[in-house]
Amino acid sequence: MKIIEKVLNQEKDTKMTVYLNLESPEFHHGKRPLIVVLPGGGYSFCSDRESELVALQYMAAGYQACVLRYTLKDKGSWPDPLNDYEQAIEMIAAHSDEWNIDMGHIAVVGFSAGGHLAACTATLAKRKPQAVICVYPAILPDIVDMCQTGMPYPNEHVDDNTSPCYIVAGRDDGLVNVNNAMVFSQALEKAGVTFDLHIYSRGQHGFSIGTPLILDGEATPRLAQWVPDSIVWLGEIMGVFTDTGFKEPTIRPSLNADAEPRLSVECSLRHILRQNEETQNIMRPVYEKIRAMAEARNFSYEGLCAAISSYTVKEILGVFKTAPDEILRLNEALQQIPNI
Amino acid sequence: MKIIEKVLNQEKDTKMTVYLNLESPEFHHGKRPLIVVLPGGGYSFCSDRESELVALQYMAAGYQACVLRYTLKDKGSWPDPLNDYEQAIEMIAAHSDEWNIDMGHIAVVGFSAGGHLAACTATLAKRKPQAVICVYPAILPDIVDMCQTGMPYPNEHVDDNTSPCYIVAGRDDGLVNVNNAMVFSQALEKAGVTFDLHIYSRGQHGFSIGTPLILDGEATPRLAQWVPDSIVWLGEIMGVFTDTGFKEPTIRPSLNADAEPRLSVECSLRHILRQNEETQNIMRPVYEKIRAMAEARNFSYEGLCAAISSYTVKEILGVFKTAPDEILRLNEALQQIPNI
Amino acid sequence: MKIIEKVLNQEKDTKMTVYLNLESPEFHHGKRPLIVVLPGGGYSFCSDRESELVALQYMAAGYQACVLRYTLKDKGSWPDPLNDYEQAIEMIAAHSDEWNIDMGHIAVVGFSAGGHLAACTATLAKRKPQAVICVYPAILPDIVDMCQTGMPYPNEHVDDNTSPCYIVAGRDDGLVNVNNAMVFSQALEKAGVTFDLHIYSRGQHGFSIGTPLILDGEATPRLAQWVPDSIVWLGEIMGVFTDTGFKEPTIRPSLNADAEPRLSVECSLRHILRQNEETQNIMRPVYEKIRAMAEARNFSYEGLCAAISSYTVKEILGVFKTAPDEILRLNEALQQIPNI
Amino acid sequence: MKIIEKVLNQEKDTKMTVYLNLESPEFHHGKRPLIVVLPGGGYSFCSDRESELVALQYMAAGYQACVLRYTLKDKGSWPDPLNDYEQAIEMIAAHSDEWNIDMGHIAVVGFSAGGHLAACTATLAKRKPQAVICVYPAILPDIVDMCQTGMPYPNEHVDDNTSPCYIVAGRDDGLVNVNNAMVFSQALEKAGVTFDLHIYSRGQHGFSIGTPLILDGEATPRLAQWVPDSIVWLGEIMGVFTDTGFKEPTIRPSLNADAEPRLSVECSLRHILRQNEETQNIMRPVYEKIRAMAEARNFSYEGLCAAISSYTVKEILGVFKTAPDEILRLNEALQQIPNI
Repeated sequence: MKIIEKVLNQEKDTKMTVYLNLESPEFHHGKRPLIVVLPGGGYSFCSDRESELVALQYMAAGYQACVLRYTLKDKGSWPDPLNDYEQAIEMIAAHSDEWNIDMGHIAVVGFSAGGHLAACTATLAKRKPQAVICVYPAILPDIVDMCQTGMPYPNEHVDDNTSPCYIVAGRDDGLVNVNNAMVFSQALEKAGVTFDLHIYSRGQHGFSIGTPLILDGEATPRLAQWVPDSIVWLGEIMGVFTDTGFKEPTIRPSLNADAEPRLSVECSLRHILRQNEETQNIMRPVYEKIRAMAEARNFSYEGLCAAISSYTVKEILGVFKTAPDEILRLNEALQQIPNI
Repeated sequence: MKIIEKVLNQEKDTKMTVYLNLESPEFHHGKRPLIVVLPGGGYSFCSDRESELVALQYMAAGYQACVLRYTLKDKGSWPDPLNDYEQAIEMIAAHSDEWNIDMGHIAVVGFSAGGHLAACTATLAKRKPQAVICVYPAILPDIVDMCQTGMPYPNEHVDDNTSPCYIVAGRDDGLVNVNNAMVFSQALEKAGVTFDLHIYSRGQHGFSIGTPLILDGEATPRLAQWVPDSIVWLGEIMGVFTDTGFKEPTIRPSLNADAEPRLSVECSLRHILRQNEETQNIMRPVYEKIRAMAEARNFSYEGLCAAISSYTVKEILGVFKTAPDEILRLNEALQQIPNI
Repeated sequence: MKIIEKVLNQEKDTKMTVYLNLESPEFHHGKRPLIVVLPGGGYSFCSDRESELVALQYMAAGYQACVLRYTLKDKGSWPDPLNDYEQAIEMIAAHSDEWNIDMGHIAVVGFSAGGHLAACTATLAKRKPQAVICVYPAILPDIVDMCQTGMPYPNEHVDDNTSPCYIVAGRDDGLVNVNNAMVFSQALEKAGVTFDLHIYSRGQHGFSIGTPLILDGEATPRLAQWVPDSIVWLGEIMGVFTDTGFKEPTIRPSLNADAEPRLSVECSLRHILRQNEETQNIMRPVYEKIRAMAEARNFSYEGLCAAISSYTVKEILGVFKTAPDEILRLNEALQQIPNI
Repeated sequence: MKIIEKVLNQEKDTKMTVYLNLESPEFHHGKRPLIVVLPGGGYSFCSDRESELVALQYMAAGYQACVLRYTLKDKGSWPDPLNDYEQAIEMIAAHSDEWNIDMGHIAVVGFSAGGHLAACTATLAKRKPQAVICVYPAILPDIVDMCQTGMPYPNEHVDDNTSPCYIVAGRDDGLVNVNNAMVFSQALEKAGVTFDLHIYSRGQHGFSIGTPLILDGEATPRLAQWVPDSIVWLGEIMGVFTDTGFKEPTIRPSLNADAEPRLSVECSLRHILRQNEETQNIMRPVYEKIRAMAEARNFSYEGLCAAISSYTVKEILGVFKTAPDEILRLNEALQQIPNI
């Protein structure tokens, strides 16, 4: 292992510690994925309980790791911490050959205030991670403002391009209310972004990796599941990292194709409804099915459309048990149209 | 095993199938816990994929099981299905000796429309279960009304007495949007009710127990975790069932003591603020700490109180790092006061 | 579920209880696999702690189940219990359509004395199961004779046609010494039969399924792993049972092809050495490699051959880093020769 | 993390790499346990696939780690590698304060040839580890001699003082036959030493930590269980390492008290039978019970004694369902006698 300390900004006391696995001709895997660890501490400090120990969990699965000690509030203000992340990623990209890091497989994990910063990398960063893990993240005004004023509330910045997220929280968290995790998840839902959310009945603030190593028994032992589970999820999103390279991902970062270059039945109804008349003509048979169902159930057509607008056209046709070749023909027609 | 079919209502075609484990002098455990299974099917049918197979999972952990086939919409209307549940529980209570069932350890698990009914047993039933598991439950108007008009939206009926819940859903559920699970969880949060929530990035509607036995590969294999995890959770809430009887529960059904006969530091700030002047006098030193923090951070006192009102007094004092004996004395003073 | 009681022999008080899963047009899987449960009890009784409860574990994974209550020693003697198994299998085969059982996917699980009987079905039965699970099995003379005189010691009857086995035992078993499990495994090793063996440091006799439901705390909680792990193993050996039928097996029942109709590089060296001169001519280049290695390391050629005789020719060529096409050509030559 | 390289012997090219976790006032655990990693490679090289990557697994559970690169056969001969271990332990002891290592909690893990060396530390070292993990270890003459001549066969050196062992192997290991693991386990059984043994049907030589990171798919995915399982086992043997220090161990390193300063009912029958006449007089009632059982079953008394000689007196009395106070009185009498 090589451990490299890089000062990002002397004055602001920001730095990153990069942990690089031993390489050897005995491994045949090519470049490795990277996990960036953002410790918590209310932007007042960076907790040692959420730093190197977390990096070790992912290194044990073959990840390179980087613990980022970002700008604290006595040395700066927002958006310094997000800029620290951008600076770190830039530096990592510049060293990606030397450090054996695959820039297409970058994940972030953050805790509490670091979970706020992680959620900001997912929503606001120029170079968004491929996957983000938020552990008891601060999202909502009451707790975000208590950390530091002037910072964004990440749920307000979620859109089609937000990174897929894995969110963990304790229901009885006495410091960062579990609602933070839920409101952020709801924003992801609305935008069609893929996410996992795991809330445990008992897990006080600061459970970190959730094992006996860190807990004094005031939590459910089930908490110890989240790290290994998140590693499997990362493999689903980014492709499992094996001795012979990455496998294919099995889960898409977005639930729909609203951001693809051409329209398709994988676009959300919401997105299709916003398109030009040509598209609406193609879609007519679908609309008629929806109208028929609305009438049959005594709903307004507009109400039903709104209720199902986040589903893809394909999903909606599935509910109507539409024949596969009909779906195929519709898809071909839609794919003629550029998505602008 | 004994399997007993009980017709609840011939006309409405409602019935329950009770599955009783083999008993023997070789077991020393006393009465067993019971799981009541509510299959899904949009109140139009009761799916075989969410009935006996589910019962078997919990029987393998020692539970007696009961699959309830409730009133479908062509035979009746709300509140028939909830009444079916009440009738079933009454019949079970009447046979609890014969059937070796401990009436203090009743859990319910429901799927989709059955998840709606499960959430209604948690909120509206006269004899609420000790624990409720809701799998891709229908909660919100759009989907609930689509099943059958005139039914309650369970999130609107959550209060201090709601049963603790374990909620599971697939983020890409194309039929019952994942928001149903989240909005119900948020209602539980507000009311101080204990819950677990697990949303998986990929798990289409109808994954049932989530194993290869039921899935055609269109979901994450991680889904198979939820049944065993829910069994551990049931043990945390109701006490693990062992060869020598029940162990002590490790998680309380409510986060606070707002429903206990006397006040204590385990009550929520919200509940304490509603009490009489005597209580407010006792609480004065706590309020002063809150006021000091508000001033230090440039918040309004009322705003800060509102932000933390769902926490218990003990949790709030923990944040202020109050000495244990000071907390003890405050608790003694509060416990003099009846909770009315 | 249907539960069918079949008396095998009134006089000997032998019977089987068959548990059949609910079938429905909602399932699409075809015929199901079957697990036959053989409870322990020293051939003096059939323990309720190792009967239906065990059946339930495998039913929860989609298996049909059969608890066989075989001839006890006050009603008969060896080979009655093995004959009971044969009779049961015959009856199951006769009902396989009615009972929806795939006769190519039969597994047996036995405990203690039932583990002895299970090991006998793997070695001595006319219709051997596709897979056998032996839990703290009685194998060796001291304990087998103590149960009942005149019974076979299963390790002495292992050969190429023995069923693959999954063996579990507690190292501190105070009744059936753990050596029973190990000696049986060694016999399987010698014969080239596939097996899993799991010995846990702490697991007193009679832990059955190894969960809190059955244990009073005198064992490692890790014991609870064996049932789910054995279900995965059954899937590896017989093919995972899914909603759309069986997947392909991933592990062969035998390590070599010594029982196949034609010779190949998958045969063990031991088997090849016993063949005629034609075969020996084909094998000459391999023998020369072995001789060269023996000389280089100062071993006798015969000694080295004996040491590696249980490996397949392919494995041995792998150690010599032989080119794939050379292996292919050798294989083609060997496959010309019938295996007699 | 601090990584310290220590050259043990320049000429023999032996060295150890010590990995020390980040310490901080935020941790409250006292000194940490240590894992010593012994890579495989036939005493010809030290495989990178079984070195740092293994250390990382245990570090993620809070262990300090040490990868020992011992004397290879081109630089020396037996007992150099064992001496390297002793030298390493001595150096670790000398730095135990500085390196924050608890010398009462030392574990060793070794692979293949390193598994041979690990088994030698368990049996032959002056400072034996508290627990030893052997992964596809070389134990028997054919493979040990092929590595290097003149080395001991660890199974021949097992006695009462051997360290408890956790042994893992692949049944189809084409290089180190699985019999190595079984014969070593049988020696541990005979000596009353605690062990776990896990043999997987499919796991070719060199699977290391058994995850996709290291495997190209030629093994059962169940192999990935062994590292986490071994960490739980280490906690059972040495006490779980938590944020507030070590918990009590739950498994004793030896099954009996044959090595304790005074006799007791926890001694094995074998050990008691070797004692003087005074002891035999105390034991008379026990011998009579055994004699009665032998007669009832038509065994010879000597044969039955031999069959059960590895059990403790207490276990034997348990089989006879002896009253607890009778066991207590016998124990008191035995404890008067020094164990010499």
